[in-house]
Amino acid sequence: MPKTFWFSMEKVWNFCIFFQVRPLYAGFDNMRLSLNESVLLWPMPAHVTRGKSILALASGFAFGQADGQHISATLTQAFSRYIDIIYEQHSLFQVVSSGLDIPVLEKLLVSLDSSTEELEFEVDESYTLKVPDPSNPNIASLQAATVYGALHGLETFSQLVDYDYSSRSLQIARTPWIIEDYPRFPYRGLLIDTSRHYQPVESIKRVIDSMSFAKLNVLHWHIVDEEAFPIEIPSYPGLWNGAYSYKERYNIEDASEIVEYARARGIHVMPELDVPGHAASWGLGYPQLWPSPQCNEPLDVSKEFTFDVIDGILKDFKKIFPFKFAHLGGDEVDTSCWKNSPVIESWLTSHNLTAQDAYASFVIRAQEIAMKHGFEPVNWEETFNIFPSQLSKQTVVHNWYQSGTCPRAVKAGLRCIMSDQGTWYLDHLDVPWDKFYLTEPHLDITDAAEQELVIGGEVCMWGETVDASDILQTIWPRAAAAAERLWSPLSMTEQGISEETLRRLQTFRCLLNRRGIPAAPVLSFWGTYVFGRVAPSEPGSCFSQ
Amino acid sequence: MPKTFWFSMEKVWNFCIFFQVRPLYAGFDNMRLSLNESVLLWPMPAHVTRGKSILALASGFAFGQADGQHISATLTQAFSRYIDIIYEQHSLFQVVSSGLDIPVLEKLLVSLDSSTEELEFEVDESYTLKVPDPSNPNIASLQAATVYGALHGLETFSQLVDYDYSSRSLQIARTPWIIEDYPRFPYRGLLIDTSRHYQPVESIKRVIDSMSFAKLNVLHWHIVDEEAFPIEIPSYPGLWNGAYSYKERYNIEDASEIVEYARARGIHVMPELDVPGHAASWGLGYPQLWPSPQCNEPLDVSKEFTFDVIDGILKDFKKIFPFKFAHLGGDEVDTSCWKNSPVIESWLTSHNLTAQDAYASFVIRAQEIAMKHGFEPVNWEETFNIFPSQLSKQTVVHNWYQSGTCPRAVKAGLRCIMSDQGTWYLDHLDVPWDKFYLTEPHLDITDAAEQELVIGGEVCMWGETVDASDILQTIWPRAAAAAERLWSPLSMTEQGISEETLRRLQTFRCLLNRRGIPAAPVLSFWGTYVFGRVAPSEPGSCFSQ
Repeated sequence: MPKTFWFSMEKVWNFCIFFQVRPLYAGFDNMRLSLNESVLLWPMPAHVTRGKSILALASGFAFGQADGQHISATLTQAFSRYIDIIYEQHSLFQVVSSGLDIPVLEKLLVSLDSSTEELEFEVDESYTLKVPDPSNPNIASLQAATVYGALHGLETFSQLVDYDYSSRSLQIARTPWIIEDYPRFPYRGLLIDTSRHYQPVESIKRVIDSMSFAKLNVLHWHIVDEEAFPIEIPSYPGLWNGAYSYKERYNIEDASEIVEYARARGIHVMPELDVPGHAASWGLGYPQLWPSPQCNEPLDVSKEFTFDVIDGILKDFKKIFPFKFAHLGGDEVDTSCWKNSPVIESWLTSHNLTAQDAYASFVIRAQEIAMKHGFEPVNWEETFNIFPSQLSKQTVVHNWYQSGTCPRAVKAGLRCIMSDQGTWYLDHLDVPWDKFYLTEPHLDITDAAEQELVIGGEVCMWGETVDASDILQTIWPRAAAAAERLWSPLSMTEQGISEETLRRLQTFRCLLNRRGIPAAPVLSFWGTYVFGRVAPSEPGSCFSQ
Repeated sequence: MPKTFWFSMEKVWNFCIFFQVRPLYAGFDNMRLSLNESVLLWPMPAHVTRGKSILALASGFAFGQADGQHISATLTQAFSRYIDIIYEQHSLFQVVSSGLDIPVLEKLLVSLDSSTEELEFEVDESYTLKVPDPSNPNIASLQAATVYGALHGLETFSQLVDYDYSSRSLQIARTPWIIEDYPRFPYRGLLIDTSRHYQPVESIKRVIDSMSFAKLNVLHWHIVDEEAFPIEIPSYPGLWNGAYSYKERYNIEDASEIVEYARARGIHVMPELDVPGHAASWGLGYPQLWPSPQCNEPLDVSKEFTFDVIDGILKDFKKIFPFKFAHLGGDEVDTSCWKNSPVIESWLTSHNLTAQDAYASFVIRAQEIAMKHGFEPVNWEETFNIFPSQLSKQTVVHNWYQSGTCPRAVKAGLRCIMSDQGTWYLDHLDVPWDKFYLTEPHLDITDAAEQELVIGGEVCMWGETVDASDILQTIWPRAAAAAERLWSPLSMTEQGISEETLRRLQTFRCLLNRRGIPAAPVLSFWGTYVFGRVAPSEPGSCFSQ
């Protein structure tokens, strides 16, 4: 156990002692007061000012678009979702605000600068929320460059609304609020892995819902791996014979539905095809892709058929996944199956290639195929570590293995995504929320132009021990800590964690629970350590666990 | 570890070896064939016959009521739910059955003998499902005495429908099906505990959804306990000061919404007021209920105010909970706080009562109050163990502590509910699914009239380590094993478990996952033991874990 881990544990433990349930929550008025003193939003917006007034939502409270605007279908759907969220999270039947001696909010009106509904990478996600708008005390205004900024504004608005039990009304405390907000990084990702365990479509949709609450915006879909190939590829229909079972499969309609479901929530879906390693399951449909029946990966580098299949998959992917990037893997390639196959060995010799050369040429060729189909390639860091100069200049290097990769990649002029396994791998259950929070994608990168090349970061939910029964509680709340690091200004997150951070994250976790997302306790102890995905160890309030 | 546990583990382990993923699922056609050979329904219906044909659901497939029937609002809601379930669990966009060379099913028509929508205890839950109806090859018929039988029939129908990936159609294999079905016990319960941890309304609704899939029909809501008093009691509004926090509360609208949500799914809600022990949280609002500030339970037996409060709560409960029974607790009463309070001690003396007498008289008086408000009382077994002859003849004894309680209770002419903590406590994570399955409520009761007095059984999800993040995976799939014991004929369940049982339960667990219920793996190992609520230990298929 590294010493830094012990230190961070000590801090968390101190918080825990501080946050004993009863002392804190004895006397609701005190609690409400102190809750009102904090800005309980997650992730924290870039700029917040607020006042000392209070507003109740009117009985017919509604979302709408400002007069004369092109009606956005995406926004109309979102209005309906957020009406449900605002009403359901407080479990009330009716908004009874008549008779209250406080002003009411009748509407939230959205104005968009652009009518485009296309979700492009680096789309403007900024928004300005005023509750109420200075021009009208009964109307809140949400202004955004695009509908995708407006979605974030609706989420922020929903987090301002509280249920008042005595009046049975929905209220917003500390008005007027003026919130100007925008993300720090354009790429704020979460990886899911549907090869080690199949995730039903319903389960993936819940992941997407929850990502939108934390303002994450890229679902990196590690669809296939050596264990299973669950997705339909019309060009090579035998491939999904590699699924675990007949029922554990995605047809192209499923995949398209997931992409559209995500888009409607401002989330890109990046497909991954991890080649040439991590691909043994391909051969259950096409055994000729295996170096030999006994030695099943990496994919046979010597056959044109291998690249035909990759071409077919990426051609089919392009019809399903509009995202700019495709992930081509390239990690953990052990070439011994190539060297042990007489046919491949003689092919290597006749082409005057070492196995390492062949690995590089395989990756480069896959990149060329991806680019031909209109994708920019993302590759795991081994490709950069081993043959940096051969990679396409369009490559995005995906760090995972070690610290220091992004600094080297951006110095070489390539873009980078940070996913340091020591702190941003969600399957590492021993990494507590504060380590996720304290991870900085710009670490050791001081040059502004180089910093620009770090497009963001991603937390990775590898699927070895994660199926539909535990994926959400393994992801949350720890992913939220990374989400704030990726969204909020560095000036805010570099302050580190405090009681206020913990309290806000606990509040966000309880919000997820109310919305049906089974986020685990923030302070979930395994013995005396805070772990991910641990049941609460004793009775207590959601807000203190 | 008792020897029987080892034996059951050995059996499960053998199954596990038998059910290795790849060998079993290599070749989908074989798998489909063998799946078709089994009746993959859970819980198993009383009588099933089937054929060798196949039907595809027509594009416009719909549920409806037979001509001339009173339109049931409950059924209309259920039709909409089951259309969603049938379509969503197979993740398809459209039902494309044209061009298939197999007959199509256009409708399922429901006939009800009674138009009542009232959910009474022992309502007729039987149904007969014919797919297709012998009179029309394109229509399935579902006949039931009441809408609550029809709901079970819809659930069974939904479990017959499978998605065919090649034709993109929904199909039912092995038609014609004729299923005649009815429950073995009228009381098939699940306890949830919202005192040790608050469960958001959304979380309770998911529990109710999942109960309906397993044909459980009583949600025993252990609302309050010593840790927290989360529910609003209009007669004594200070009581919910005992909630963990301002936000962790149910107002009466929430509670009523839960009751109606459950009713629409054929599920009763039984409230519990656990007196005189397990009630310390009451005093956060009314400290005079405590024997002393230092000694907070049992409730002060010497004050009339105590019984006024119980009266107020039960009066308010009657407006919310229409169920015939209210649970009055009565377990684990340690009377030392009474004996240590000079005021109570002198009250006992002046009334010539031992503390034990006072405990009995407290329980009896609570029973009288409950009966005055129209409830029949349920009490935990200590009340029967300690003062059997003083209990009302209307009492239902709720076994939990030891085996043999129900045999004694029914011999004494009282009704009984079986919840043996050794096998039906879901918080006992070391109890695997097969122990749940093999638990028999009629154990050691041979007289038919006495057997009749066992109204059923209940699995208990105590909340010490269960909040919204882990309740569903702690309940499922183990609760399903008990659900089959309580629903299916004894002639079937007394056969014990077999590979077929395990396979069916795994299939049901995967069905729950597809429907968004995060049921844990059936064979979830903790080391070499099968435990409840454990993450899958390695990659694999849902159907084999």
